[in-house]
Amino acid sequence: MARSFVELLGDKRDGRAHEPGDIQRLIAGLGSGELADYQMSAWLMAAFLRGLDERETLELTDAMLASGTVLDLSDQPGIKVDKHSTGGVGDKVSLALAPLVAACGVPVPMVSGRGLGHTGGTLDKLESIPGFRVDLSVDDYRRIVREVGTCMIGQTKEIAPADKRIYALRDVTATVESIPLITASILSKKLAEGIDALVLDVKVGRGAFMKDLGRARALAQSLVAVAKRGGKGVCALLTDMDHPLGLTIGNALETREAIEVLQGGGPADMVEITLALAAEMLVLGKVAADETAGRALARAKLASGEALDRFGRMIEAQHGDRRVTTDLTLLPSAPHVVTLAAPRAGFVADVDPLALGLAAVALGAGRSRAEQPVDPRVGLVLRAVRGTAVTLGDPLVELHVAKQSDVELVRARVEGAFRIDDHAPPARTLILETVR
Amino acid sequence: MARSFVELLGDKRDGRAHEPGDIQRLIAGLGSGELADYQMSAWLMAAFLRGLDERETLELTDAMLASGTVLDLSDQPGIKVDKHSTGGVGDKVSLALAPLVAACGVPVPMVSGRGLGHTGGTLDKLESIPGFRVDLSVDDYRRIVREVGTCMIGQTKEIAPADKRIYALRDVTATVESIPLITASILSKKLAEGIDALVLDVKVGRGAFMKDLGRARALAQSLVAVAKRGGKGVCALLTDMDHPLGLTIGNALETREAIEVLQGGGPADMVEITLALAAEMLVLGKVAADETAGRALARAKLASGEALDRFGRMIEAQHGDRRVTTDLTLLPSAPHVVTLAAPRAGFVADVDPLALGLAAVALGAGRSRAEQPVDPRVGLVLRAVRGTAVTLGDPLVELHVAKQSDVELVRARVEGAFRIDDHAPPARTLILETVR
Repeated sequence: MARSFVELLGDKRDGRAHEPGDIQRLIAGLGSGELADYQMSAWLMAAFLRGLDERETLELTDAMLASGTVLDLSDQPGIKVDKHSTGGVGDKVSLALAPLVAACGVPVPMVSGRGLGHTGGTLDKLESIPGFRVDLSVDDYRRIVREVGTCMIGQTKEIAPADKRIYALRDVTATVESIPLITASILSKKLAEGIDALVLDVKVGRGAFMKDLGRARALAQSLVAVAKRGGKGVCALLTDMDHPLGLTIGNALETREAIEVLQGGGPADMVEITLALAAEMLVLGKVAADETAGRALARAKLASGEALDRFGRMIEAQHGDRRVTTDLTLLPSAPHVVTLAAPRAGFVADVDPLALGLAAVALGAGRSRAEQPVDPRVGLVLRAVRGTAVTLGDPLVELHVAKQSDVELVRARVEGAFRIDDHAPPARTLILETVR
Repeated sequence: MARSFVELLGDKRDGRAHEPGDIQRLIAGLGSGELADYQMSAWLMAAFLRGLDERETLELTDAMLASGTVLDLSDQPGIKVDKHSTGGVGDKVSLALAPLVAACGVPVPMVSGRGLGHTGGTLDKLESIPGFRVDLSVDDYRRIVREVGTCMIGQTKEIAPADKRIYALRDVTATVESIPLITASILSKKLAEGIDALVLDVKVGRGAFMKDLGRARALAQSLVAVAKRGGKGVCALLTDMDHPLGLTIGNALETREAIEVLQGGGPADMVEITLALAAEMLVLGKVAADETAGRALARAKLASGEALDRFGRMIEAQHGDRRVTTDLTLLPSAPHVVTLAAPRAGFVADVDPLALGLAAVALGAGRSRAEQPVDPRVGLVLRAVRGTAVTLGDPLVELHVAKQSDVELVRARVEGAFRIDDHAPPARTLILETVR
């Protein structure tokens, strides 16, 4: 006789590994209504405190994946590779990376999320492009991946609904910060895209979900181990999020910066991280023999304009105005720009990404609740970053605001995010570790 | 600003003691609907795994108590003392004990439960008395305690509703067997009776909730410590439940046995445990200087017939037929009695209370689900107990059944409950420890 759900909860409560099939039964029970939310949340707390091993985490991933539609792309040629970032402030890498990797010959199917809290979301950034639509049908998604090599859509109700339900429970039961539960949540959504391989950008620092390197490394190791066990090619970069990425925070401003990268320009940290992730994806996609070759191929596609053209084709396929790739003034812009100045001379010693991310939310660039709309125009542009030498009155940051009075909502927080010192800070390391 | 419920869950998840007032907020939130069941169940799992200290357990007790009505008896003279048993097979002690202690001058207000699973319930036993009612109003309860010295009613919806709701959640989330949660559940219901002191009978063994002495001792210590912290007089006896108590299992059969004790007879183990509990209650009730004096007083009230008369008066006040106290044939009886015989000669070396308790449920004496009715007539009568010498064919046990064919439902289980050996087993110790 099958053991009862209560007995299965007792297993995890007592620190025993679940028998194969038991996690699948719990998740199926949640879907069918045989297992109640209050039982799932007790299990989540037990799993949080007792842990799940790799086999259990993969079973949870597979069960959540199987709760919905898997976008089968197996009839399409090529090794499909995606990137997932755990989220940071100013992280607009996906917008440049997906068309770049597609231009190198590796298909990039990408199902993305919206911003919540201080981190932005790819969908919100894309929607700052006039006409751009992320709510395509699965058929359109499959067709665009085949024809253009990349397509970026929003998570549909059909993708991993068990993850959505469990995430909502975790959010209100203090069970978010569990490495196995985070691993299964990320992988179940990503594997539902129909990919063969995945590169993970695990952010570390004040602007990231994982504040310290040890926890971030543990998450990266868990993601890599479980994805491998699930038969996927995978690697993870641990990258710095103790400083905003690039110079812009806010949807249209970030889209502009991603286009600058595709045009062959852009801030050095954006270029570095985009090339590093691209190189890994090209190796996993078997169009580059090693990282060095992958990086060279990616550089060539940026230089030739093919990556930018690929982004234009994707925008067009998704009903957007592709002219933005050559005319940045077509992106929406804020009616007022106010520059805050350095209060003293010295070196910028620290720029707190969390404070700036929260300031951008306060200006309307992000959300504190899932149903809020965002204003694509507003945000911040850094005029100085860590290490910049400034004199009194030099510009530190531009506030792009919907109305002049909004400046006062965030002035103190933004000013407080910058620390100016007499000495130059040590150089910043952007890519901290690689986990394979 | 008050910390959010999710932060409070995080405290317990991380093993921190709650700040004073936080548990009260959680329980009040559950009542008002601000805290959802799925949040409470996550907290229950965290509390199960991380524990609650005595202060937290008392705060939980008080909060559950405060979620409903407290039956205030403070205007009535005397120190009100009750007894609570954690439940066992054949445990009909309350029926004899309450009128006995009341006859000695200590008021015994008693709110009891119904049987569930293999353990019987006091209310079911009382209802085998023709006409007896347990669903009295609070006013009647107060009046009968004042006039008769004891009254036994069922738990109303008004008593500790938070405990009822939390217990229902614990039952389906594998969080029942937590000593602090059990402590708060027991004490919140008992303290709602309006008592000043409480004697606890913590059963140990196969027929009990606590199977081993260590766990039972830990529960007894927790109950005593928390009740003391709450300002109540208290002590706990750890008593053997590795053998059924007395000779009868089943509602009318057990009521009959309790009356036999009040008549001055009854099985030795029933008399011993009744006197031991009575002595503790009389000391706490300050009508006896010590246990020895309490025991002597109780013996005298049994011998004089005053205890039996007190039971008769309580039955009458609760609309029952008090003639049962002198004419046991007025209790309902089963239409068929089948005796199972010893399959060999020797000594009865073991009688498994759990197997017999479950057999009684299968015959209709108990419930496996809360809404099931019980048949007052059916059950088992032991004709041999641990240590009895038997020859082949001697009676071991009587099955009192509603229909002849029911015997086959339980025959194997009942036969399997008896083990006969060549040698007499060591003597049984009934009262294992006292915790004060």
